[in-house]
Order: sequence, then C-alpha cells, then structure tokens
Amino acid sequence: MNVTFRGRTQHYRTVAFDRARNAVLLIEQRLLPHEFKIVATKNFRETAGAIRDMIVRGAGAIGATAAYGLAQGALAFRGSDLKKFSAHMETVYRTLRIARPTAVDPVNAMHQTLRAMWVGETVAEQQSLALAAAEEFASEDVRHCEEIGRHGAKLIRSGMNILTHCNAGWLAFVDIGTATAPMYAAQAQGKKFHVFCDETRPRSQGATLTAWELAQQGISHQVIADNAAGHLMQRGEIDLVIVGSDRTLGRTGEVANKIGTYTKAVLAKRHGIPFYVAIPLSTIDWNLKRGFDIPIEERCESEVLGAWGVESSPQSNSDKSRAGVQSPKSAKRVYVRVANPTSGARNPGFDVTPPELITGIITPAGIFKPKELWQQRRKLGFDN
Amino acid sequence: MNVTFRGRTQHYRTVAFDRARNAVLLIEQRLLPHEFKIVATKNFRETAGAIRDMIVRGAGAIGATAAYGLAQGALAFRGSDLKKFSAHMETVYRTLRIARPTAVDPVNAMHQTLRAMWVGETVAEQQSLALAAAEEFASEDVRHCEEIGRHGAKLIRSGMNILTHCNAGWLAFVDIGTATAPMYAAQAQGKKFHVFCDETRPRSQGATLTAWELAQQGISHQVIADNAAGHLMQRGEIDLVIVGSDRTLGRTGEVANKIGTYTKAVLAKRHGIPFYVAIPLSTIDWNLKRGFDIPIEERCESEVLGAWGVESSPQSNSDKSRAGVQSPKSAKRVYVRVANPTSGARNPGFDVTPPELITGIITPAGIFKPKELWQQRRKLGFDN
Repeated sequence: MNVTFRGRTQHYRTVAFDRARNAVLLIEQRLLPHEFKIVATKNFRETAGAIRDMIVRGAGAIGATAAYGLAQGALAFRGSDLKKFSAHMETVYRTLRIARPTAVDPVNAMHQTLRAMWVGETVAEQQSLALAAAEEFASEDVRHCEEIGRHGAKLIRSGMNILTHCNAGWLAFVDIGTATAPMYAAQAQGKKFHVFCDETRPRSQGATLTAWELAQQGISHQVIADNAAGHLMQRGEIDLVIVGSDRTLGRTGEVANKIGTYTKAVLAKRHGIPFYVAIPLSTIDWNLKRGFDIPIEERCESEVLGAWGVESSPQSNSDKSRAGVQSPKSAKRVYVRVANPTSGARNPGFDVTPPELITGIITPAGIFKPKELWQQRRKLGFDN
Repeated sequence: MNVTFRGRTQHYRTVAFDRARNAVLLIEQRLLPHEFKIVATKNFRETAGAIRDMIVRGAGAIGATAAYGLAQGALAFRGSDLKKFSAHMETVYRTLRIARPTAVDPVNAMHQTLRAMWVGETVAEQQSLALAAAEEFASEDVRHCEEIGRHGAKLIRSGMNILTHCNAGWLAFVDIGTATAPMYAAQAQGKKFHVFCDETRPRSQGATLTAWELAQQGISHQVIADNAAGHLMQRGEIDLVIVGSDRTLGRTGEVANKIGTYTKAVLAKRHGIPFYVAIPLSTIDWNLKRGFDIPIEERCESEVLGAWGVESSPQSNSDKSRAGVQSPKSAKRVYVRVANPTSGARNPGFDVTPPELITGIITPAGIFKPKELWQQRRKLGFDN
C-alpha cells in the first residue's frame, strides 16, 4: 500500500525481493509507527534473523519472507554440484524454519517453494525456479487479500463506523491485508466511512500498526481503548466489526485471534452488530476438532505491566496536521513500567470465538457462515 | 489500610487531619505505585490545589478532603467577629468547590460540615464544630466501607478468583474502599482467594492503584489486559466480579462506572458469573430517570494515545521479591506516545451498565437487586 515518507508517496510491499542485490526487502515493523525504514537482508541468515527478531511479523508476511529467504539462499550458492546444493538448501531451510518454530506459514511457504524447485534438473534451473516459486507465493498472498477485499467491500456502506481489533492489515501480509482489505477496497470504490481501531493491549498493534496503515491510506479513523467498544456499541456508534484470524477451525467455524477478539464478538452479538472475520485460506485448520484444544500462548508479563513508546509531551499528542511518518533516528522507543512494581501479570495472547458469534467469514473464495466452511472445503482448497 | 514503606508496615488513611499543624494529610496518588509520599497541605488553598491537581481522587476521598479543607480554613481564622468569619468561610467554600467543579462529593461533604458548624454561637465554637463535622464525615465514610465489606465478604469463598475493574479501593475513599472492601474483610476472616486486576486503560488505575493496594495488603493478585477477562471467563478462571460505581440510579438500578465496566458485565452474564457493584450511599442518584441521560465525559485523547510509567528494562519487570514500595526520587514518571503520531482518539471516560446484568448492589445497608434500590430508598437514606 502507499506510504508517505519524506514527502513522497510511494507504493511499498511489506515483503519484496531485490534480485540485483539478492536481498529481501522488509519494512522494519518494530520501529513503526514512529519511524519508517526498509531493511535489506544480505543473506538467508539475516532473513531468518529478521523473522526471529520480528522485524517482520504476521502470517502472510513471514510466509513470504521465508519463501524469499529460501530463494535467496538458493541464489547465493556457487557451483553446479546438485548434491552439495541439496545439502546447502537443507541448511537454508532449517535456519529459516527455526526462526519462528511454532509458526506454520513459513513452513508451508517453504514446502511450496521446495516442491516447485526440485523439478529443475540443474542447480541453475532450481535456483531460478525457487525465486519464481517465492514470487508466486507472494503474488498469491496479494491476490487472496484482493479477493477478500472484493467480497468484503460489499459489507461496507458510506457513513458506516467500523471497528477492528489488532492488526490484520497489509503489514501482516505482503500487501493489502485481510481485515483491512474490505476497507481499502471500499475506499477505492469511493465509499466514505470511519474506523475505530481498538488499541489492542498489551502489544497495542491497533494503536500502532493499524492506525499507521489507515493514516497512510487517508482513511478516517480513531484509536479507542479496548474498554470503549462496548460503550460505543451501546450508543449506536459502531455498525460493523471486521477482525482477522490466526487460526480458524474448518470443522467447527471457531476462530482463534488476538486476545480481546472474543469480547468484541460477545458485545457485537448483544447489540445485533454484524461481526465478520477476514481470513486467508492458509489459516484454516482442517484437522482440529475443538477450539478448546487450540493452545493459547501465555506471553511474558512485562507486556501487560508496561508499554513501549516514544517519550513525548502529552500536550503535543494530537498533531494530526503532520502527514506521513517521521524520518529515522527522531524517535527512540523506550519501555515504561506502568503497573505496581511488586505485582505480576497473566498474559494470554489469543482467545477463541465460537461460531454462533460470527456473522460471516470473509475468504478469498467468498463470504461463508462459520459452519459452512466444512461443506465448502473443496472450494476453500482442502482436497481431502 | 497498611503500607510497608522503608521497611516499616503502618496503617494509613488516604485522607487524615493533623490538628497540631492544621494540615490535611494526603497520600500523593499521582506518584503511586512507583513512590509513596504523604503530602501535608499548609492551608485551604493548598488543599483545594490537591483536589484540583488530583493528588487525591476518588469520590469518598475528595469528599473528606473538602470537609477537612473547610475545617482547616475555619481553624486558620484569627479573631472573633462572626461576620468576618462568615465572609472568610464563603471564600474557603468557593475555593474548595471550584477545585473539581463537576464532582458532587466535595459539595455534599462541605454542606454537611457547614450545617453542623452554623449551630455554634461563637467563632471558636464554629471552628471546633467544623473540625468535628469533618472528622465525622471521614469516620462515616470508613464505617460505610466497613459495612460494605461485612456484607460483601459473604460472597467470597476460599479458592475463588475475583475480577475487579479500575480502582474502587481504599485510595478512592478515606480507608478500606468499596469494591475492595469485601476482599479485605474476607482476608481478615482467613479466606484465601486470588484477584485479577483489569489494567483499566486508558488511565491504568487497576494496574497502578488496585494492584498496589492488594500488594500492600498481601492479597494474591495479577494484572491482566482489559482484553483478557473474556478468555479467562471462558476457561472458568473467574468466579466473581466486584466493581465500584461513580453514579448509581436509584430509580432504575443502572450503574455508571469507569469505561469497560459494561463490557465486563456483558461477559459475566454470558458466562453465568455473579457481577456485583459495591457502592457508598453518596453515589446513588435518586433523581435521574434514565441511564442514557448520564453525561459521559469525553476525556483528552493523549490518555488513549500513550501511557505514563517509569522508564525501565522489560526484563527486570517481575521483581516480585521486593516487598513494599520504592522510596521517593527513585522513579520519575514519563509519558510515552504509543500510538501512530498522526492518529487521534475517542476517549469516553465512563459507561452505563443496565440492571439486568447486575447480580447485586452491595451497599452499607445490605446487598440488593438493582431494581430493589427504589423500594429500599428509606433504608438507603433517601427521605423523600
């Protein structure tokens, strides 16, 4: 999507490949929203490091990064000995895989890339097939998000107030995003609407990443405390909720997503507000039979007990006149301890929303009721 | 309640009066939980300043502070001319009243004090009656909280997990608090239980004040993100919710309280978890007919867009071994901007919870269904 940086508006992808330098280009997401910077990883080890250190995060984005990392590793190989090349690729694969050991997207992306490249009969052929497969993986991610946007935009009418939680935006994918895709598509159709971004404590991805994305795209929006959505719904100020998903159970229609999603779904149900989940096909889990069995990561206490931000004056906080983003080095993020110093915290990272609270699931293949996913499984790419 | 400070555990009230120095003693709440400090205001103007600048906050606490401030002003008067004394008291009253112009508690507390003192026939008599009335106001606040604790403790069984939102603790009153009163009473009865403190963004009173209080009292507790309560309820990890109230409608049983309270009530209802509101009698509004008509303060955007805390390392964050509080000067609070610098925010300060979501209202006179308040109005001190 577009980013205005140093006065220039330009299209960026979250993840891209620079063939000339054999480098993966990534938006350094840990600096956002205070700084905008593109990182070019010099080799597959640096690319693995970027995944591990969360320079890049989000299902689609780390999948594409791993695929490009694999191609980058392949292209760096000198020689024509297929056996040595195979051994090298084994190292590249393992290095990228252990960067985020529990994430499923990098593994799927790399398997897809490896399957495509093994068809080649020479090292050179395999190298170029690897890059083509990685490019195809990234392009497919973009096409899926475009399709989600095309289907989801129908839900948005001019004048609507839309609530979203966390960041399922273009920064979490190669481009466009999932929960944000209907918004960008509706904007392109000339619809005018307003978005409330849940702050999304404890990591505040709504206040930082989603708000940044919407600001860059010129979409009217405001950040709200996670506590405020119930009140706004009660007063009729929210017409539609769209969130993303980390894992959707194809058999039951249950959705695991960022902590707090379930709460918003319960509130939306009470107020008769449509609650939609936008998902890429890769996050559908066709095996698991019960949402209760989804492991809920317990994250570190410090996330809840404090906050990361840039030291500033609370008075100068609503400087909405300043478009674009700041230039690097102007904004050092620091951690502040907010909570009582002698208290601890519980920090579950995700929660599970049951299908009866979900109006529809927006997929690249159309919008379905959660319970319809299983019967639509072939259409949704599950071939068993 | 007890505070452990520089190795000594001692009982403190949030608001107290030092007769010898004619000073109001206040816990400097803006420094908590990072520093513990008692402020002694030298005169009624400083006392008004302490209310205005939120050194002291919370319904009961600012009421008692205003009453003591009135007595302090009275006692500072030199001479025996009743007319001059009256004019002086008018100034004192106005100065204290405008400190928090929308708060009802200081006004009620001062009217009660003024009514008591006008009975005196000399300046000296009126001065001593003013102090006696202020002391009585503070004592009554404590007695009411004790009664809330006595009634509410019956709801707590050993082994329970209790959720609370914001701070309706002893720091908001003269002592003991309302939502916390049943916990302190149950602890005194030897019951063992665990409390989840909602962080309570945007001002984080749960993470700062409630967590500090519970730590000082040695009650097992953890801070959670406001987003996490729904998940914990879903997994059966919350047995009881107790919150406070800023305003309770005597005619309808609706409760206005810190933003996010309504959300917790909706979640509790869905999970069949008892949801109680603990209230001092002074917060019952016997006039208003619809909760919808309660004005909801829209607070400044910077609260949502950032956070206040003490710069520290996220690694050293769970230092639970350190008991008590830090000594002054060790912890400078700073504001960090968390959100995207070009985004704004909505920041409603309160929400309204309807009676059907409230299991019971814990008052000093007993526990009532929200709809019973009106029929119990005489017992609850409303004499119309």
